[in-house]
Amino acid sequence: MAEQKKMVAEITSLDEDFTQWYTDVCIKAELVSYSQIKGFMVIKPAGYALWEAIQQHLDARFKATGVQNVYMPMLIPESLLRKEGELVNGFAPEVAWVTAGGSEPLTERLCVRPTSETLFSDFYKDDVHSYRDLPRLYNQWCSVVRWEKETRPFLRSREFLWQEGHTIHATKEEAEERTSQMLDVYADFLAEDMAIPTIKGRKTDKEKFAGAEATYTIEALMHDGRALQSGTSHFFGQKFAEAYDITFTDKDNTLKYVWQTSWGMTTRVIGAMIMVHGDNRGLVLPPRIAPVEVVIIPIQQRKEGVLEKAYEIRDALSNFRVKVDDSDKSPGFKFAEQEMRGFPLRVEIGPRDIENGVCVVVRRDTGEKIQTPIEGLDQVIGDLLKTIQSDMYERALRHLEEHTYSAATKEEFVSTFEEKTGFVKAMWCGEQACEDKIKEEYGVTSRCMPFRQEEISSTCVCCGKPAKKMVYWGKAY
Amino acid sequence: MAEQKKMVAEITSLDEDFTQWYTDVCIKAELVSYSQIKGFMVIKPAGYALWEAIQQHLDARFKATGVQNVYMPMLIPESLLRKEGELVNGFAPEVAWVTAGGSEPLTERLCVRPTSETLFSDFYKDDVHSYRDLPRLYNQWCSVVRWEKETRPFLRSREFLWQEGHTIHATKEEAEERTSQMLDVYADFLAEDMAIPTIKGRKTDKEKFAGAEATYTIEALMHDGRALQSGTSHFFGQKFAEAYDITFTDKDNTLKYVWQTSWGMTTRVIGAMIMVHGDNRGLVLPPRIAPVEVVIIPIQQRKEGVLEKAYEIRDALSNFRVKVDDSDKSPGFKFAEQEMRGFPLRVEIGPRDIENGVCVVVRRDTGEKIQTPIEGLDQVIGDLLKTIQSDMYERALRHLEEHTYSAATKEEFVSTFEEKTGFVKAMWCGEQACEDKIKEEYGVTSRCMPFRQEEISSTCVCCGKPAKKMVYWGKAY
Repeated sequence: MAEQKKMVAEITSLDEDFTQWYTDVCIKAELVSYSQIKGFMVIKPAGYALWEAIQQHLDARFKATGVQNVYMPMLIPESLLRKEGELVNGFAPEVAWVTAGGSEPLTERLCVRPTSETLFSDFYKDDVHSYRDLPRLYNQWCSVVRWEKETRPFLRSREFLWQEGHTIHATKEEAEERTSQMLDVYADFLAEDMAIPTIKGRKTDKEKFAGAEATYTIEALMHDGRALQSGTSHFFGQKFAEAYDITFTDKDNTLKYVWQTSWGMTTRVIGAMIMVHGDNRGLVLPPRIAPVEVVIIPIQQRKEGVLEKAYEIRDALSNFRVKVDDSDKSPGFKFAEQEMRGFPLRVEIGPRDIENGVCVVVRRDTGEKIQTPIEGLDQVIGDLLKTIQSDMYERALRHLEEHTYSAATKEEFVSTFEEKTGFVKAMWCGEQACEDKIKEEYGVTSRCMPFRQEEISSTCVCCGKPAKKMVYWGKAY
Repeated sequence: MAEQKKMVAEITSLDEDFTQWYTDVCIKAELVSYSQIKGFMVIKPAGYALWEAIQQHLDARFKATGVQNVYMPMLIPESLLRKEGELVNGFAPEVAWVTAGGSEPLTERLCVRPTSETLFSDFYKDDVHSYRDLPRLYNQWCSVVRWEKETRPFLRSREFLWQEGHTIHATKEEAEERTSQMLDVYADFLAEDMAIPTIKGRKTDKEKFAGAEATYTIEALMHDGRALQSGTSHFFGQKFAEAYDITFTDKDNTLKYVWQTSWGMTTRVIGAMIMVHGDNRGLVLPPRIAPVEVVIIPIQQRKEGVLEKAYEIRDALSNFRVKVDDSDKSPGFKFAEQEMRGFPLRVEIGPRDIENGVCVVVRRDTGEKIQTPIEGLDQVIGDLLKTIQSDMYERALRHLEEHTYSAATKEEFVSTFEEKTGFVKAMWCGEQACEDKIKEEYGVTSRCMPFRQEEISSTCVCCGKPAKKMVYWGKAY
């Protein structure tokens, strides 16, 4: 057990220093490694396998709603970027500029895409003529660059992987419906596949995406009580259509501007998964996302018949993603490694178990050990994986609920944030001045105006004027 | 039929102007569209679906050999790029340079990756310590930028999508074996999935990859008799290991440099597929790659029961990728569109067919029409798709064989290239001077020294000195 302790000792305790714990898990579970350029990370096999699983689930959900994948250039001419003022102002301070191609300086600077509204708009402008061409429901999987000052693996990096959907529609209603449909897709994906509950709502004008008329968000709560914006869906109205001249001839034979949306989810959700489910032994992966669902660890594997039995069990579990750890490390080291990597179930099988026709199944999420007959194991494993998936969601939901508070007055608001970590629901007058003040004085931002509004009180928690909206406030990543 | 003719008339005849035909197909089959930056293309849904199918097949083949996916940064510091001299000299003239991040100029220029040997080497240097850490079999799917002067969709673009595998090994033998294993993976994928036969061989030193000790290639022959390098696999020896100091402690407890390989395949293979299989009606897709294998086109679809029958047939063909074209276009237009897009089979179903319990199946590759009972159609479709896949390969192979010539003397060599299009097999002394001369005088390059050597004559076709190798020569894309 010494090795097991050693490996576990390598990560900082989560209650002691959550930030350091997070970094330790990213490194020790071999998800990422730093590169020579600040904020550019190497995503290692264990990390990339998570992204592949996320892509697979999310892409299938997109396609089920009629979305098609495309690929746009990674570089944007400066003049094209500058066509829509708000977007430029939002992104210009943080783009990377290409100024030379080969040995020649370029006549116009090109930026590495920070997001691709401009490219999609420029494309749609020539691609769409008639209402028959609408809607266009395009998405791309790619990397983008934003020159952030502070960077952390997955949570905030100068380059990150994401998908960005960009759709155009003939009517406002259809575009609005798509905006909320995609928010639902994200929320369902996080809940059902990643076991992460979220609060759905609308961003305030201060917090919305540069250039959007409305930004919708799903906000998750991390183990340390800080919020993480986990996916956003934007309604652009006709702003880009006007700036980029994207028109179509409608059924009534008049020329109209299209209505536009965009929506994105990034490698950040890997960070969310780590911080919602992880513990002091490392990662805890929801079964539906885990690249390996079951690790079979033979005990006294040099004894005759042990390895053979391990392979036999693997073959009997062919419905699942199973790995036998037959390396020459000690069982204790293998246990620690499987726990660090977060694989949902471990099956231990040794000579005495074989004699008795049983094995021990250990849940990663609870540590519970279950002795069970080898015969019929696949049924047991299948049931356990389902249970783990739903238990993980339920635990995360309970954590979210238990760390969501209400504050009717400024005093309550302030004392709650002083004493607790989590979301605080409180009323807001709708003025940015109050948002600014709250952020400045308490380091707290408006996370969203939830779709499910409640009336905590009748006045703004900041200025005391009549309240317009109930807002989720929190400290955020 | 007027509309059908019109749509077909929109593409230039392949025999008249192959280059224009190629561009027409790329545009009219809606594979790509141009962006504002020369050489940067928009890959549209029909084009990207091909890349998704290619990725899926190829990625499964990689993983079956133990390869794992990762993601490396898209930017490379200039100092890192410059560590290996040959690679820099090969790529420096064609990289894009990032010189500013946000509003600040960078202290060191960063290039957008043209290929990632340098990044993988820099990563492996710290990641590998012992022989137990080897081999590392990593691959990434990403986009790269090379500032080409002449550009054409898929064939040569300034940004393209690809995969690049980078492996390191404890021994030379193992690295060499991996190099040839991956070349086989590419050749098998092209033959079995893309229906494209290739010649396997080694590049001459003049034509090999910058920094490689040996480059292996698969060369395909396009419909117009020009060659297309379709995939390459490189053996680096210890060159990068020495430049980037990638060492490991071997079993004998001594410090050694690793042995390295890399291998890549790009969106170029979509160009190859177009130019090997396409015809005057547009694309012809091999069934295994086609996003849609069967298009069902109802005739007189407003008549009662016709559309219902079309959907019923679709549901009965659930083993295949099937689409019903129930749009309000005319059947003739739908036929032309399905042919332009290259979907392998079309099922025509009208009121009289329904009465008789039959339908008409039309092969895209041959135009053959087959009347067949609706009952048992899935068996017929399954067999036809297999037949089409293998017929397409056989036709391409026959074309390759019929356009491969031998030349024993310089006169034969010259006259063959004057009169014919295709590969010419001829002997070579091994001197670059002769390669240079042949390229300069006849516009012909050495495509490869095939693994299957023949002795066409005993002397170099250029200088008459004793021959060392039989070479495939050709005009190339």
